[in-house]
Amino acid sequence: MTHPLLREIRHNPLLWLLVFVPVVFAGESLAPDAHTLLFVLSVLAIVPLATLLSHATESVAAKTGDTAGGLLNATLGNLTELVIALAALRAGQYTLVKASIAGAIVTNTLFMLGASFLLGGLKHHVQEYNRASARLQAGLLFLATVALLIPSTVPEANSAAGAGFIQTLSVCLAVLLIVAYGLGMLFSLKTHREMFASAEHGEAGEAPWPLGLALATLAGVTVLVALVSEVFVESVQEAAEAFGMTPAFVGFIVVALVGGAAEMASAFSGARKDRLDLSVGIALGSASQIALFVAPVLVLLSYVLGPTPMDLRFWPGAVVMMLIATLTASLVTNSGRSAWFVGVLVLMMYLVFAMALYLLPPRVQ
Amino acid sequence: MTHPLLREIRHNPLLWLLVFVPVVFAGESLAPDAHTLLFVLSVLAIVPLATLLSHATESVAAKTGDTAGGLLNATLGNLTELVIALAALRAGQYTLVKASIAGAIVTNTLFMLGASFLLGGLKHHVQEYNRASARLQAGLLFLATVALLIPSTVPEANSAAGAGFIQTLSVCLAVLLIVAYGLGMLFSLKTHREMFASAEHGEAGEAPWPLGLALATLAGVTVLVALVSEVFVESVQEAAEAFGMTPAFVGFIVVALVGGAAEMASAFSGARKDRLDLSVGIALGSASQIALFVAPVLVLLSYVLGPTPMDLRFWPGAVVMMLIATLTASLVTNSGRSAWFVGVLVLMMYLVFAMALYLLPPRVQ
Amino acid sequence: MTHPLLREIRHNPLLWLLVFVPVVFAGESLAPDAHTLLFVLSVLAIVPLATLLSHATESVAAKTGDTAGGLLNATLGNLTELVIALAALRAGQYTLVKASIAGAIVTNTLFMLGASFLLGGLKHHVQEYNRASARLQAGLLFLATVALLIPSTVPEANSAAGAGFIQTLSVCLAVLLIVAYGLGMLFSLKTHREMFASAEHGEAGEAPWPLGLALATLAGVTVLVALVSEVFVESVQEAAEAFGMTPAFVGFIVVALVGGAAEMASAFSGARKDRLDLSVGIALGSASQIALFVAPVLVLLSYVLGPTPMDLRFWPGAVVMMLIATLTASLVTNSGRSAWFVGVLVLMMYLVFAMALYLLPPRVQ
Repeated sequence: MTHPLLREIRHNPLLWLLVFVPVVFAGESLAPDAHTLLFVLSVLAIVPLATLLSHATESVAAKTGDTAGGLLNATLGNLTELVIALAALRAGQYTLVKASIAGAIVTNTLFMLGASFLLGGLKHHVQEYNRASARLQAGLLFLATVALLIPSTVPEANSAAGAGFIQTLSVCLAVLLIVAYGLGMLFSLKTHREMFASAEHGEAGEAPWPLGLALATLAGVTVLVALVSEVFVESVQEAAEAFGMTPAFVGFIVVALVGGAAEMASAFSGARKDRLDLSVGIALGSASQIALFVAPVLVLLSYVLGPTPMDLRFWPGAVVMMLIATLTASLVTNSGRSAWFVGVLVLMMYLVFAMALYLLPPRVQ
Repeated sequence: MTHPLLREIRHNPLLWLLVFVPVVFAGESLAPDAHTLLFVLSVLAIVPLATLLSHATESVAAKTGDTAGGLLNATLGNLTELVIALAALRAGQYTLVKASIAGAIVTNTLFMLGASFLLGGLKHHVQEYNRASARLQAGLLFLATVALLIPSTVPEANSAAGAGFIQTLSVCLAVLLIVAYGLGMLFSLKTHREMFASAEHGEAGEAPWPLGLALATLAGVTVLVALVSEVFVESVQEAAEAFGMTPAFVGFIVVALVGGAAEMASAFSGARKDRLDLSVGIALGSASQIALFVAPVLVLLSYVLGPTPMDLRFWPGAVVMMLIATLTASLVTNSGRSAWFVGVLVLMMYLVFAMALYLLPPRVQ
Repeated sequence: MTHPLLREIRHNPLLWLLVFVPVVFAGESLAPDAHTLLFVLSVLAIVPLATLLSHATESVAAKTGDTAGGLLNATLGNLTELVIALAALRAGQYTLVKASIAGAIVTNTLFMLGASFLLGGLKHHVQEYNRASARLQAGLLFLATVALLIPSTVPEANSAAGAGFIQTLSVCLAVLLIVAYGLGMLFSLKTHREMFASAEHGEAGEAPWPLGLALATLAGVTVLVALVSEVFVESVQEAAEAFGMTPAFVGFIVVALVGGAAEMASAFSGARKDRLDLSVGIALGSASQIALFVAPVLVLLSYVLGPTPMDLRFWPGAVVMMLIATLTASLVTNSGRSAWFVGVLVLMMYLVFAMALYLLPPRVQ
């Protein structure tokens, strides 16, 4: 009987990309200025690492019982995004951190949800799913986008008093969002777990690893992701210029797609198997986790790790996109039914945003 | 058998605060410059007076039959807010008037509704309620916030032509909102009353007073509220500075909580008794009454009572908060079901706004 | 047996206005500077021509089978609006073109829908209708308004780089909207037609004309509309000044009501006959057709026909009105039930916009 990790790698072609992990480190010491090459290599290395990380988290979660497991999934589910953002945070690249937060929210809400609806709808005429989870996540997301709206729209934020206000408000909002996220877990994992039943046990689809292997993978791969992320963050801006992409497009679209690749694979496979509960849960759950857990944690960690404190002020266009994405998710999941065209509509919304960001002249970010 | 007014006072600890009514008047003639003290005393005096006013209105309403009673409740239900706003109007404090209108709408929609859901949800696992009333009130509120959005966002309102435009538009919108409110009453009390059945007869929970006592209380207490409101309005700004609160926070949060204390007591007690119809009806009904009746009446009365005409231009932040509050109420009441976490989400939204207003640097109101 | 065209004219008093068609042409050659008179005459001539056009399109559609017919209705249903807009496009009056697009979307969504609900509700206590069609059209409209929001809110659009960005983005968005519209037809006419059943066959209410007559009418009347539209477009600005109306009001309200008169007649008659499926389908279908087909086609045609390319940048106020109209339609049709007051609410929203546009000082458009 083969080692479960090797079996997994043989089974999942995405993991063959693991070969790029050593290649990145080799590349960085041999050609530290080949930014475009390093960018491509780091993307190719992050995708399989994210997949491993996601499987390891789920395996630990499966072993530790439903409540602790749900908690673990809810805190470590976006570990890749968190580690990438931490690398950018330590480098003081707050614009990239914020673009990747906003981009992950919009990409998960529109691209992951829309593509799940479309892929599921191409195979199944009409699909039904449990609305309870979608409603909870959409509610949390709506709260988070409103919380991000406030510091981003205060007109006098450039004055000294304004800057202090934004900073204090950001810390208060960060704490409030984490509390809301925690209470949401209490609600869905403890007091009202029967409402979210089908979405929950759906996630135990794949065979879990033994606990020791899962924990070791979790630790080892996190370190690898952190190391590769540093190469990624260092090379991303110059690579973007080489590709003719605006920094807004890279932060919003490319980083979000790279960081979320593993979850997308699960969400799309769930949709094809007519288990839309699972897909909707992953897409909106991941978006709300980034908005209510990853982003606030980054604000708080910036006091320890960053060169200066980070606030929750976003570029107004990003706030508008997050608000529209949240509203779209809320309107679209309201009926609990889906067909292929719903997916098209949601994907088109994402395309509108991606198009605008791609064409945006460099100054206007 | 004791007098019903005395029995009520003995029964309801809130009414023991009535002792502060004479204390306010004594304080004002003895120490007219002790603004902070007078502010605290006037708040303590308004709360029991508002409770009496609310009970008197309901007693008259109970005696005059369903339709006339509903009409009376709908016009006098926010008498306290109206009288406080009239005192501010006569003093020409239009910023306070507008902040208290916007604040009452947001506080009723988010705080009163959210706390009702939370208090009810802590006692009952899942609560169901009649959506018809919530839909009607949310629709009226949405109309009103859009109507307030228009004059508040015209860019050239500072020019002479712009100012005239805003003033004419405000009067037209005020008339339109009052007509919409009137037609809404015709709909819910007359042509389609069967849809709103359970919410209606719920309000006759407490034993009504005899008509004579109710009318006398209504008249007498209104005069007392008017007198105490003048002390409140005169002292509020300086007391706010003493407490380190911004004027925006005072108008939006403090005045709204003081003016709505009586309704909140009823809404919360309804939620605990699993009569959420009642709570939702009070919270959203009160908000829509302020938006479609109190605010327009104040605009029209400003031509008679105020030093200059008042318009319907609000601080853009206030309009955004009203819009978000209305949208939240509309999304949240859409399902007709509630659990404790729904209350948490709505309360958190209120906290986000309250936090921002509390921290706001003084210039940015 | 009389000729079907003559029978139709005798039957439908609106068609008696056809007498104004020759009068317009006579007026234009005799008194080319009597702008106000020519404006009134051209309005009186367009209304019956639009009615004929609409009937001819439906007759051809009825003869060519359900799918091809639906396709024809979906492309030619707003032929009058398209021809008027083309006349304005050729004259380089892009402000009028855009105002009439935005106005047609808002007028169809709020006025046509609201008046249908009100007229139906005055006759029937509660009306139910198939939500599927309303949901689809509201989704398409929401996508379109978000697509129009992006180019309209980019801050630096006045710079050279910004202008090029807006132009490229407008063309990309135009193509994307046409694709979305086409996929929407594929969905509602082909893959999921059973969902939209009742709304579809409802439209075959009137006796269709023979194919030859219908095609001849379609061709001949289109030419007449084009000729009258030129008089209309030439005279509208000066007539507006004579009537004391702002250009924004004329483009938004007057042109939209004139261009949509024929569809309104059908929608209102459907509502009175308790066939709200039909009314909602016409109102929202027409709005989404203008947003996703007419407007993008005009952008693309402006490269061939106009003096300079037209972009999709709208006056921010117009974008806000379109967004609110779409959101209102989506909230209001969510329940699939209607009563008279729903119509009042939607009409009031329209009145708020019309009032603001009527009173707007000329500079602020």
